Amino acid sequence: MSKPPAERTEQLRADGSLRHLLTLDGLSRGMVESLLERAAHFSRPFNEPAARSTALRGTTVAIMFAEPSTRTRVSFELAALRLGADVVNIEVQLSSRRKGESVLDTVATLEAMHVDGLVLRDAEADVPDLVAAHVADHVSVFSGGAGSYSHPTQGLLDALTVLQHKGRVEGLRVAIVGDVRHSRVARSAWRAFSLLGAGEIRLLAPTALMPDTHDFAGCTRHDSLATGLTDCDVIMALRIQKERMTEADIPSEREYFAQWGLTIDRLKYARENAIVMHPQPMNRGVEIDSAVADGPQSVIRDQVRHGVAVRMAVLEQALVRQS
Amino acid sequence: MSKPPAERTEQLRADGSLRHLLTLDGLSRGMVESLLERAAHFSRPFNEPAARSTALRGTTVAIMFAEPSTRTRVSFELAALRLGADVVNIEVQLSSRRKGESVLDTVATLEAMHVDGLVLRDAEADVPDLVAAHVADHVSVFSGGAGSYSHPTQGLLDALTVLQHKGRVEGLRVAIVGDVRHSRVARSAWRAFSLLGAGEIRLLAPTALMPDTHDFAGCTRHDSLATGLTDCDVIMALRIQKERMTEADIPSEREYFAQWGLTIDRLKYARENAIVMHPQPMNRGVEIDSAVADGPQSVIRDQVRHGVAVRMAVLEQALVRQS
Amino acid sequence: MSKPPAERTEQLRADGSLRHLLTLDGLSRGMVESLLERAAHFSRPFNEPAARSTALRGTTVAIMFAEPSTRTRVSFELAALRLGADVVNIEVQLSSRRKGESVLDTVATLEAMHVDGLVLRDAEADVPDLVAAHVADHVSVFSGGAGSYSHPTQGLLDALTVLQHKGRVEGLRVAIVGDVRHSRVARSAWRAFSLLGAGEIRLLAPTALMPDTHDFAGCTRHDSLATGLTDCDVIMALRIQKERMTEADIPSEREYFAQWGLTIDRLKYARENAIVMHPQPMNRGVEIDSAVADGPQSVIRDQVRHGVAVRMAVLEQALVRQS
Repeated sequence: MSKPPAERTEQLRADGSLRHLLTLDGLSRGMVESLLERAAHFSRPFNEPAARSTALRGTTVAIMFAEPSTRTRVSFELAALRLGADVVNIEVQLSSRRKGESVLDTVATLEAMHVDGLVLRDAEADVPDLVAAHVADHVSVFSGGAGSYSHPTQGLLDALTVLQHKGRVEGLRVAIVGDVRHSRVARSAWRAFSLLGAGEIRLLAPTALMPDTHDFAGCTRHDSLATGLTDCDVIMALRIQKERMTEADIPSEREYFAQWGLTIDRLKYARENAIVMHPQPMNRGVEIDSAVADGPQSVIRDQVRHGVAVRMAVLEQALVRQS
Repeated sequence: MSKPPAERTEQLRADGSLRHLLTLDGLSRGMVESLLERAAHFSRPFNEPAARSTALRGTTVAIMFAEPSTRTRVSFELAALRLGADVVNIEVQLSSRRKGESVLDTVATLEAMHVDGLVLRDAEADVPDLVAAHVADHVSVFSGGAGSYSHPTQGLLDALTVLQHKGRVEGLRVAIVGDVRHSRVARSAWRAFSLLGAGEIRLLAPTALMPDTHDFAGCTRHDSLATGLTDCDVIMALRIQKERMTEADIPSEREYFAQWGLTIDRLKYARENAIVMHPQPMNRGVEIDSAVADGPQSVIRDQVRHGVAVRMAVLEQALVRQS
Repeated sequence: MSKPPAERTEQLRADGSLRHLLTLDGLSRGMVESLLERAAHFSRPFNEPAARSTALRGTTVAIMFAEPSTRTRVSFELAALRLGADVVNIEVQLSSRRKGESVLDTVATLEAMHVDGLVLRDAEADVPDLVAAHVADHVSVFSGGAGSYSHPTQGLLDALTVLQHKGRVEGLRVAIVGDVRHSRVARSAWRAFSLLGAGEIRLLAPTALMPDTHDFAGCTRHDSLATGLTDCDVIMALRIQKERMTEADIPSEREYFAQWGLTIDRLKYARENAIVMHPQPMNRGVEIDSAVADGPQSVIRDQVRHGVAVRMAVLEQALVRQS
């Protein structure tokens, strides 16, 4: 597991406005609430046209993903395009890294080309931080997922989804289920929900996939769905990878589903009106049953919808020139 | 060979306007003619600037190609851009499918991001149909080529090319030459030309590459260029693949050319003013001689030019909001 | 090494304006100065927003790179977008070439789609020339780097960088260091600096990496940094590739650095206010020490900045319709 960066780069400008978004850690509740409010403004029902503005006309956003991710890449790209920005996509493995160029030289290059915003995704937790610590004053850095440490826009979209369905996060009981240990989604959700006053955040995982005890401060821990889901308002299933099952001594996807798969029957442990979330892509029949994923309590597609809105709010807040 | 879908998804809205374009099968002659008329409006001579409009400003088109195709991908991309749409490209193999995500989950994701139009190309004949059967009401699906079954915008651009050169399709004698059996181009051309009243559609192919007898209803079949090209107005050469030659017991590209290659000499079987078409990419010296491909009867580059115009007409018709 | 094309395609229109940019060879000093003046107009300090215009609204630029290059590709892409053009990216290896399609058929296709400008990069020196010799009158071709022969926009950005730092090229002493033999960057810089009246252009290289004697007319040759850097105003370090070291009988990167690496100490041979350039990507600790690359005399990031400005000037000059 990648380690969190030892020292955090300052994410705010002197006037308190957001400059970078690398992690939700250290952001004030006011800042998060203000981003979510703006994201709600950009959020539209499924059957209505997307929200658009010209706030970023004349601005350039470069998207550099070193890990494949259709969902997050396209979500950032649409967010930037719908604000009127120019967008360039850069495949990191296939281009400069192949020539042995360092990430920082690539970033310095983009900066010199007057790129205003850099969206970075990397398997290494500290790449976005490293970049943010070195970019010029006029450049903002956005994490699109960093190692197992942070995925801040995912945390925000999860929070917006809960807010829109429950009216509040305050006081709610949240269960995060699965490979919590290696999940940047879980970490960012935990930060977002904590900041917004969740009543209880429960981690439900096989022992080997439970995070270290000092990690996820304030969360309670459960070793079965039966105990952990009881009376929950929000259930967040996580994607499980084959190699993690092996680590947890679970011999097959079938066995994982038997122990940890979210089914209609198990949903009944939670509150009747509990909502079910998943960051996607889903392993249907492994961590979640299709009947749950596509069922009435699922808000998984709302998460995607809110993802674009949250990224619009973040890009707008950081990139609109104050002058 | 992929089988055609058993049941067709409805391509029209309740008011009779085009919603999806998956196949030309089932479209009325009026609808096809109206699309071609609009495409003619978007078509420009080679040396004039491309046609443009702002009809799709505020609209998002996602292009998902699971098979490589510069020509068709760029043609759809330019058509969308020139109508003012935002466009995102998604490489299917390299991204979500690699993680085992299903096509439908990917599509549901794009839909939730307020993508209005999805252009899909897949080696499986039924993928665009499958997707169209599941998307939300506000989303349109366009096939950019599906298995060996359908390539509807290719059929339309072939029809437009004939119309512009011959003034009509009605009554013309058309020869389709080569691997007809596995060709979605041939199938879509056959449908377009039939609908528009072609006088005779001939299939010219080695026995092994001739379609099954129940397929290509109404076409006549010829086992040599000499008999098949006689008195034709339109000759459409098809791309041949190495493995198909083997199937047809033709030992080499050279031998294929000797038997089935379109040469200046063989062109003489057809009418003096016959036009020659090819969907590209061409195997020069295999299914077509360069002297023919680049000669005065070739309209191959017009096909490309009309391709953008036809895709503009289709995207505009399906995606302009009626409200 | 690829050979330069035997016969040059005419790069100018009948009225003397720039149509293609394939090489600086044959351009007049007045044309180069006029491009650099326009590029200076588009150049902005690091902390100011990028220059923009709508000069290319309604114009389409296709970028076809057969060699990976984030820097040059993104630089051309941003230049085109910031002039208001539509841009499509085409990965040559992954798409049409894979099907055996010839470059000329691909280009004829793009031309028929009303692409106005083609930016080409290829390991073969004559590909852009070949394409330019065959495109229709309304299409312009721009080399983004061709074999070891030519990289004209790189030559222009190098010249602009010298002009902005030294006020002139006239009379300056320039040292080009490293694998000159295989470097299109060196060739294009040599042409640009010669045309603008540089006082002396020195080539510093191990014998095996020195160009043939008939090549680089008018340059002096030096076999050590000690003799070659003395009293220079401009030092241009070149990227060295592992296989070229082997050719030059230099056993390791460490040994190359010992003999040919640009260090703070060696900089002292040159003039006190000498500037240091590198086309990137850099092999830090091989051809250049980080203390030099990031030091006060380095203008490497200015080169990148000027790269976008130069490409805007070139695209604008060639693609704005005169009508």
